[in-house]
Amino acid sequence: MAGEMAEQPAVLRRLLDEGAPRIRAIAEQIAARKPRFVLLTARGTSDNAALYAKYLIEILLGKPAGLTSMSTTTAYGARPDLTDVLVITVSQSGGSPDLVASTKAAREAGAITLAVTNSPGSPLAEVSEFHIDVLAGPEKALPATKTYTAELLALYLFVEGLRGGDGFVAKALPELAERILGRREEVKALAGRYRFAERLVLTSRGYGYPTAKEAALKLMETSYIPALSFSGADLLHGPLAMVDNVSPVIAIVTDGKGGEALQPVLDRLRGRGADLVVIGSQESVEAASAGFVLPTEGVAEEVQPILEILPLQMLAYEVTIARGQDPDAPRALAKVTETR
Amino acid sequence: MAGEMAEQPAVLRRLLDEGAPRIRAIAEQIAARKPRFVLLTARGTSDNAALYAKYLIEILLGKPAGLTSMSTTTAYGARPDLTDVLVITVSQSGGSPDLVASTKAAREAGAITLAVTNSPGSPLAEVSEFHIDVLAGPEKALPATKTYTAELLALYLFVEGLRGGDGFVAKALPELAERILGRREEVKALAGRYRFAERLVLTSRGYGYPTAKEAALKLMETSYIPALSFSGADLLHGPLAMVDNVSPVIAIVTDGKGGEALQPVLDRLRGRGADLVVIGSQESVEAASAGFVLPTEGVAEEVQPILEILPLQMLAYEVTIARGQDPDAPRALAKVTETR
Repeated sequence: MAGEMAEQPAVLRRLLDEGAPRIRAIAEQIAARKPRFVLLTARGTSDNAALYAKYLIEILLGKPAGLTSMSTTTAYGARPDLTDVLVITVSQSGGSPDLVASTKAAREAGAITLAVTNSPGSPLAEVSEFHIDVLAGPEKALPATKTYTAELLALYLFVEGLRGGDGFVAKALPELAERILGRREEVKALAGRYRFAERLVLTSRGYGYPTAKEAALKLMETSYIPALSFSGADLLHGPLAMVDNVSPVIAIVTDGKGGEALQPVLDRLRGRGADLVVIGSQESVEAASAGFVLPTEGVAEEVQPILEILPLQMLAYEVTIARGQDPDAPRALAKVTETR
Repeated sequence: MAGEMAEQPAVLRRLLDEGAPRIRAIAEQIAARKPRFVLLTARGTSDNAALYAKYLIEILLGKPAGLTSMSTTTAYGARPDLTDVLVITVSQSGGSPDLVASTKAAREAGAITLAVTNSPGSPLAEVSEFHIDVLAGPEKALPATKTYTAELLALYLFVEGLRGGDGFVAKALPELAERILGRREEVKALAGRYRFAERLVLTSRGYGYPTAKEAALKLMETSYIPALSFSGADLLHGPLAMVDNVSPVIAIVTDGKGGEALQPVLDRLRGRGADLVVIGSQESVEAASAGFVLPTEGVAEEVQPILEILPLQMLAYEVTIARGQDPDAPRALAKVTETR
């Protein structure tokens, strides 16, 4: 896991240098077909990447988008009319039978189908009309790390391509990612805080919300700490009752409109005496109990999630080691999950 | 909370007797406009009702549907083209400013807008083109119970109306709900099991998945036990690592295709020695550590969620009392959550 985390700057660079032209060509072909709606299908880590893409599509493209409930197709046999609908299926392995079946059904129902995978020869890539390879190289660790950030960047470049953008704001990411990954000692210090935590709450709003969900998943997979993730607005609708001075909260404060919308939630959390760790700008970390400062100056809000997850992957890794467990051997997991 | 839970059979009956004709008339008007895509917007408990509607729309109507990420409209100002899109906003109070703003924006963007609320004179009802009143009567307890089941039934009757059905399979629900609510002693016995639980995992698939999410929310709001909910398929993609013999699992096994699709997940959980409590048919409870048997004979799968949540609401209530807390006074919650 540590090795694959460390590869991320190189993976992002490869995607920008070698992957981007092909992604742009696919985006141009799909844009010419003028899809009206976008549906995203994925599971686990890739589902969090799909949620990021949903924000991009709604905000940058102004198209309505939704995440599919896969069982409606695979268990209930629903066959909606998908004319003018772009169905994007995101999967590291491209091998899960339910993803293959639902993508096949979507194509038969008239959808434009695009698979985003780390596995060009996979069954999913084969049943899809279009395929984007995220070029992350073989991922062997059970907790997915480099395929997640590669999926995020590939989806960003694709959405940029759909609107004829150049994706220029992503250029600095490999260098910035490298610097973040070099700050292991800071993350170790944060990890000590959760040595005996019995639960964690993660929250964010807007572009950072997928980061909260993915960080929770990473923490659960590796450290087994129950980690609950909520959009800041949903946290106020009930689960806030659960947060007190022994329930640590990690907030991802994306620098921009998402972070601004989160401020009232942070105020409420501070008011309840929550232990609040912030991943975000210098200013947002200073207003919290502790945190990890991200470079946000000149980094467009929509690509910040590609950096935000890095200290949280590292945190999951370090907390797991601090608790005497092995992040490379989470119990009960298989790399290709054969759900149907 | 107990009083409002007990009102549910009467609320369901009122909705079937008095509400149904008006819901059908609205459904006919909307069906004539031929929406191609449905977006659902809600928060908290109502968001779980919206997720149930998403399953109904995809499976019974065969139309693509998605849950909106509200911040894309309210924080980022996204204004997608919503021609041919039906936007359904679900809210008990109809008063949350973000729901009002996003519904207004959707209507301006060309959507057919429908509000489903328990508050006909609310700002949300006023900005929406159509409005369905769920007729649950004033809800004073902070944890929503009767408005949830009323929203489920209203949404079911609406979707049935869209496809020209008569909603006949819902007729037996008030009587069945009454019998379930009378089984308090059984629920008390189950509640003892969670007296000292430090976390809970809830899982289901298909129509029962919104029940798992709503039960988790109810447990968190009242008892403060961190309750994680996962679709069965997602549970296998990572969080399963967190489940062991001290992590209790509650599975909602809807009798039908959803329950069938959950069986491999239940097998994996049994294999990991999980304490597995099942809410479902006699047969599915017998294959678990313990459970609560629901009447499923002759009850169509699509309306089972209206019954499934009842023992789980009761469980949240009884667990809270068993832990020496007050289910009627959850800390930190307000009835109308003013997120923006």
